[in-house]
Amino acid sequence: MADAVFVAMEPFLRTEYGNPSAIHTEGLVARQAIEAARAQVARAVQVRPEFVTFTGGGTEANNLAMVGTIESLKTAGRAYADMSIVSTHIEHPSVSKVLNHFSALGVQVAYVEVDEYGTVVLDSLKNLLSEKTVLVSLAYANSEIGTIQPLHAIKKVLKSAEQRFDSIILLHVDAAQAPLWLSCQFDSVGADLLALDTLKCCGPKGTGVLIQSRRAQIKAISGGGGQEKGLRPGTENVPGIVGAGVALELAQAHWRERAEQTTKVRDEGIDYLLSVIPGALLNGPTGEDRIANNINLSVAGLDTEYAAVVLDSKGFAVSTKSACAGAGGGESAVVLAVTQDHTRAAATLRFSIGPQTTSDELMLLADTLAAHAHRMHKLT
Amino acid sequence: MADAVFVAMEPFLRTEYGNPSAIHTEGLVARQAIEAARAQVARAVQVRPEFVTFTGGGTEANNLAMVGTIESLKTAGRAYADMSIVSTHIEHPSVSKVLNHFSALGVQVAYVEVDEYGTVVLDSLKNLLSEKTVLVSLAYANSEIGTIQPLHAIKKVLKSAEQRFDSIILLHVDAAQAPLWLSCQFDSVGADLLALDTLKCCGPKGTGVLIQSRRAQIKAISGGGGQEKGLRPGTENVPGIVGAGVALELAQAHWRERAEQTTKVRDEGIDYLLSVIPGALLNGPTGEDRIANNINLSVAGLDTEYAAVVLDSKGFAVSTKSACAGAGGGESAVVLAVTQDHTRAAATLRFSIGPQTTSDELMLLADTLAAHAHRMHKLT
Repeated sequence: MADAVFVAMEPFLRTEYGNPSAIHTEGLVARQAIEAARAQVARAVQVRPEFVTFTGGGTEANNLAMVGTIESLKTAGRAYADMSIVSTHIEHPSVSKVLNHFSALGVQVAYVEVDEYGTVVLDSLKNLLSEKTVLVSLAYANSEIGTIQPLHAIKKVLKSAEQRFDSIILLHVDAAQAPLWLSCQFDSVGADLLALDTLKCCGPKGTGVLIQSRRAQIKAISGGGGQEKGLRPGTENVPGIVGAGVALELAQAHWRERAEQTTKVRDEGIDYLLSVIPGALLNGPTGEDRIANNINLSVAGLDTEYAAVVLDSKGFAVSTKSACAGAGGGESAVVLAVTQDHTRAAATLRFSIGPQTTSDELMLLADTLAAHAHRMHKLT
Repeated sequence: MADAVFVAMEPFLRTEYGNPSAIHTEGLVARQAIEAARAQVARAVQVRPEFVTFTGGGTEANNLAMVGTIESLKTAGRAYADMSIVSTHIEHPSVSKVLNHFSALGVQVAYVEVDEYGTVVLDSLKNLLSEKTVLVSLAYANSEIGTIQPLHAIKKVLKSAEQRFDSIILLHVDAAQAPLWLSCQFDSVGADLLALDTLKCCGPKGTGVLIQSRRAQIKAISGGGGQEKGLRPGTENVPGIVGAGVALELAQAHWRERAEQTTKVRDEGIDYLLSVIPGALLNGPTGEDRIANNINLSVAGLDTEYAAVVLDSKGFAVSTKSACAGAGGGESAVVLAVTQDHTRAAATLRFSIGPQTTSDELMLLADTLAAHAHRMHKLT
């Protein structure tokens, strides 16, 4: 967590303990802090503050966006069977599990084809959209293989379908990976529902944000007090919200410079990794189509869970899949979906880098991994 | 928030930033912290750690308990129309709104009679239970008027109904108000689902706990990663969870001494308030039937919202209703339900005291309020 985030949160963890719904001074102080954070987020993504809702994390923001949309239409009288959601097979569990939930309830769920880099195939999208389509759910950047979706082109396809069908197709964008590395300026993203998680941008865990467009109608997914206009009932997590405001402001402030510099380090690292590790393959796209902080390799035949443990013992904290896809082995569903290659999907390694990561560090990581792979190869 | 809570949380806000689902050392440190907190909560309420689920607050814990139970039965094939929930008209919005939600879906919702003090009338409960009853939802202590429900007697009624109908009736207890003042020892409470909110016991905002009995079957209310056994998906709020463990341990450690001492201060305060404020009436029960920290008065004819503002200017932070029941005037639904008196329900004032509150402070509050009421009376 960024120091500035902690410094902003600390008073609300220690002395400013008021309940923001209370009418006394302590309550007003908390209320003002929340509204200041809301304004900060609104400025960072360039929307009006009333379109910013704080949630208990990115997973909750995705759930609120999707369940909120479908249930709002259901309440308005539209049957589940008259609705279709379009998404992909490479979404984060907080999206894919909601797709399964609605599929079981009779909502049609259509999966757009993605190419070998994880990029949405626009023709496939065009073909899947129908009069029934009410929601399209896509990640801005894939959490495992870093694919940045061509949201402008996707939005164009959606707009043309809306005209064709005289319908509204809401675009939900899971932007959990985005704030440090991509513009989240709301209009340019083109989303109707933009879900953010502050833990991914040097902010607190347990706090997320959902940004809505004017035309997005959503229903709360839980019942309680009227907090967050009833969309997220329960006493607000004031310190978390204050931290979210600072984190998102800082993340968006210099995202382009940060991304450019980190992309350079990333690409040097990728080149070196591929050159020293025999059989290593990059998963996901290259260049500007890939989010700056993501490196994802497959090393066919290597037990990458074990490799992660060995790297950990040398001071490198690396992952295999998405942490939310669960610990304990198994294939990467994302890599399988884009490669249709089980060997490759079973042998993934993911390196998330930051603005402080250097090429030297990545080379040391590569050499360490290469030595380990070599040792394993000799043993078998 | 208690200092010890902040001290325990701080490292996880600053340096221990690992994702508990990751396999590297940073992840393991976070995982161990969560499991240590779970063990701490388990010890505090005397259950096995696997029955402790961390949530994003008390509202979410109540929602998870109720929605989780009904949807789990629904998934198992039981129709909404074949289910009944029994509750009261004086529940917190995080329970009453869920009751409304299920009522709209066709679940029968039956409201037990409560007496003038807010206590459940056992004969009414007996009469409302049926073969359809799957869930009874009650607050351990009412958040506005402090009524402690006779859970032992209630549990007896439920057990006898379970035998009569050869059924399972889960008891959900909203214990948000309880940890500092009442035993939350799980067996003695008799609940199947016990919902806690750490902000009510000197812990962090944005963290709640749901304790389950062995026979309680619940379904997640959102979709995502497998965190908290899938019951609360999303990267865990590690600092919040760590704070929850400490807060609940401290709260339950000396609840009886704390409650006895604070009850004495409370009762002296109530006596003095009633003696100096003409027409003031106590809402809720007296003595041991009332939670130690709650004072709730009606002063018929007084604009209590304005009185709260005046008291605030003198340094007293007081409330009118439940903060979650929304700012901005209006009657107290709870006081109306127990008194059927609109004048009384429109003129409530709630004073929450703590272990540090002294009788002298309460007398000063009473004198200040009496002077204000006198001034208002002369003006009108």
